[in-house]
Amino acid sequence: MSAAPDINPDRLHADLAELATLSAHPAPAVTRVLFSKEDLAAREWLVGKAKAAGLDVRHDAVGNLFFTLNGSDPGLPAVATGSHTDAIPNAGAYDGVVGVLGGLEALRTLRENGVTPRRSIELIMFTAEEPTRFGIGCLGSRMLAGTTSAEEAASLRDADGRSLDELRPAAYAGDLASVILPTGFYQAFVELHIEQGPMLEKQGIDIGIVTRIAAPAAFRLRFTGSGGHAGAVLMPDRHDAFLAAAETALAVERAAVDSPSSDTVGTTGLVEVRPGAINSIPCDVRMEIDFRDTDVDARDAAIDQIRSEADAACGRRGVTLEWSCINIDPPAICDEALVECAEKHAAALGCGHTRMISRAYHDSLFMARICPTTMLFIPCRNGWSHRPDEYASPEAIAKGTNLLTRMLLDLAR
Amino acid sequence: MSAAPDINPDRLHADLAELATLSAHPAPAVTRVLFSKEDLAAREWLVGKAKAAGLDVRHDAVGNLFFTLNGSDPGLPAVATGSHTDAIPNAGAYDGVVGVLGGLEALRTLRENGVTPRRSIELIMFTAEEPTRFGIGCLGSRMLAGTTSAEEAASLRDADGRSLDELRPAAYAGDLASVILPTGFYQAFVELHIEQGPMLEKQGIDIGIVTRIAAPAAFRLRFTGSGGHAGAVLMPDRHDAFLAAAETALAVERAAVDSPSSDTVGTTGLVEVRPGAINSIPCDVRMEIDFRDTDVDARDAAIDQIRSEADAACGRRGVTLEWSCINIDPPAICDEALVECAEKHAAALGCGHTRMISRAYHDSLFMARICPTTMLFIPCRNGWSHRPDEYASPEAIAKGTNLLTRMLLDLAR
Repeated sequence: MSAAPDINPDRLHADLAELATLSAHPAPAVTRVLFSKEDLAAREWLVGKAKAAGLDVRHDAVGNLFFTLNGSDPGLPAVATGSHTDAIPNAGAYDGVVGVLGGLEALRTLRENGVTPRRSIELIMFTAEEPTRFGIGCLGSRMLAGTTSAEEAASLRDADGRSLDELRPAAYAGDLASVILPTGFYQAFVELHIEQGPMLEKQGIDIGIVTRIAAPAAFRLRFTGSGGHAGAVLMPDRHDAFLAAAETALAVERAAVDSPSSDTVGTTGLVEVRPGAINSIPCDVRMEIDFRDTDVDARDAAIDQIRSEADAACGRRGVTLEWSCINIDPPAICDEALVECAEKHAAALGCGHTRMISRAYHDSLFMARICPTTMLFIPCRNGWSHRPDEYASPEAIAKGTNLLTRMLLDLAR
Repeated sequence: MSAAPDINPDRLHADLAELATLSAHPAPAVTRVLFSKEDLAAREWLVGKAKAAGLDVRHDAVGNLFFTLNGSDPGLPAVATGSHTDAIPNAGAYDGVVGVLGGLEALRTLRENGVTPRRSIELIMFTAEEPTRFGIGCLGSRMLAGTTSAEEAASLRDADGRSLDELRPAAYAGDLASVILPTGFYQAFVELHIEQGPMLEKQGIDIGIVTRIAAPAAFRLRFTGSGGHAGAVLMPDRHDAFLAAAETALAVERAAVDSPSSDTVGTTGLVEVRPGAINSIPCDVRMEIDFRDTDVDARDAAIDQIRSEADAACGRRGVTLEWSCINIDPPAICDEALVECAEKHAAALGCGHTRMISRAYHDSLFMARICPTTMLFIPCRNGWSHRPDEYASPEAIAKGTNLLTRMLLDLAR
């Protein structure tokens, strides 16, 4: 088999810059929440690009988008790549987007060079990898893999109480039960992504090839105490919901730091304190916790520890705690043959590479349940992501995209 | 001197119920933020009631409202009462309002009974006792007392960056420097208020006569760390602004509990965490702290302790802390002759009474700087305030208002 043609880094760079302008917050911030005006605009823009590139376009009922370069034997399971274009509030231009636009550039390059693979190659833009809207991440890939059922998806509500049915555009109307993919639908899945950690940049390595994806868990907590005037209620008479929440957030950190696994991370990223006035004792706090590890047992022991410290803090303070699980998932093990395929092509391209694990959550976590999967990481500045100054260089993106193109073509033999 | 006539409790009760409907949140919650639609509606309603009662009406440039029952010797310094009608988000119908509508009922009762006091008696509706809009409490009384200068007031900005000049209605246009009262303007000031603590109710006492008002201090803190993806940044590499804030909030509680003064209270009532997504490490936290005591030295030592613990937490975590003082005030000592006057009339009315201190912040704190001052507290259910289920019984309010009426008339001899 001959090597794949090289991609056009200038065109890819221009696409990245153009998509970044579709944002609810001004540049350099990028905000695209599922089914917001900006998310819908990005979807329309992407469909236009894919059609212009001669790819077939389809979608499913949850809004996953599929862009297909047809193979010479389209009855065979296709090879897939993809990522997401949604972005949390005040995020950057690269997380997810590099995988989608890199995938688009790969397919476009193959097609304009007249390369027809044997298997079809599909680019997937997954719905709602970010949990901003519904509190659950990877909604699209969870549903493709059957991890989240149609009933569970239909029962989701956003902060304003709206469901998927109310939010999805009319074009996506259809039975959510039809989203799940048939067994064996894809031959393989490869996701290109920025590292979102500092390791590759620090060590000067071009490509991280992912062997495992950490097991994520997310919880929603609500602390209910009793409020009152900050001047009038003496300290022994208080049931301050925020102080119970503060103790719990510190317990999350402690459980992560104390874990025997060095990969454990725990974060309290969302905190809402009510009534939220300087002279009023907090009586109602909503908090969301993210906890992950490649070692499920270490993760689950840490979660037990947090739960017990939160219960103790609430008990001491006379504060009520509602604890609910948003998701608790096993880790993903990547496919050894795919990892070796990535290593082979990285070497042929002259790219430095290393095997690594992903602590970040990706659609690959769920794709790995239904087909052989791996991920290609490229360096990003200071390991930053989910912030406006997130950055990956055009050179790093081009290397990753060339590697992706070669892998897809090889896998589609 | 003959006793003052009794007030009309049904009319007062109806006024309280009517004013409670002017709220930005549905009943039973009351929300009236300075110069919001609801605050302006409440002002208009109150002016209408006062005019209907035959009182003279005037205002100053910050929107303090003055309702006057003219005395037979109007050249003498007047006797004043008053409180506020603004309300923090999701508060109740009694805090402040009992003093304003009780004062209105007192003046109305005197006038309709043909009682002309020697000195004029004025009811004051103070602008922005609550700090919701500008972060500083008692804005109107601070300016009357000259504690906050016109320049300081002009430099205030709300969360949207708007100034008093931009927010005050055209009717209040005028030089903020004209708000300060001339020396000796008032002969005495008495404020009727719900206790906002549980003591009177628990002990079955009708009236608390305030001898001191705690010294309040308020601080605005901003923690700046660095954000990043919750899955990708390992624990040792984090600079989590929220965890530094959580440690500080617990230090506030500890400093209050450890203080040698049993009156010390410390509260972290406002906490805003950004970017505020479950999978994003907090990089920007805004927090406001309220701290008060009747003992200035104990309070200031506790504040030093909090400051040093906050600095230590931020130093350990690589988080930057901006600490700014919103206000730090001395306590108020009430006038012994006024306290005795209250005791005399309470006894004559058959009301159980006790001397007490106020840990809550009141306009009286600033009025005490410019004239002899005391406060009359009435019981409120469970000591609750600043919440929708705040409640004082019609009987308790009537007792307090009758006492206020007698005191005002006595002081206006």
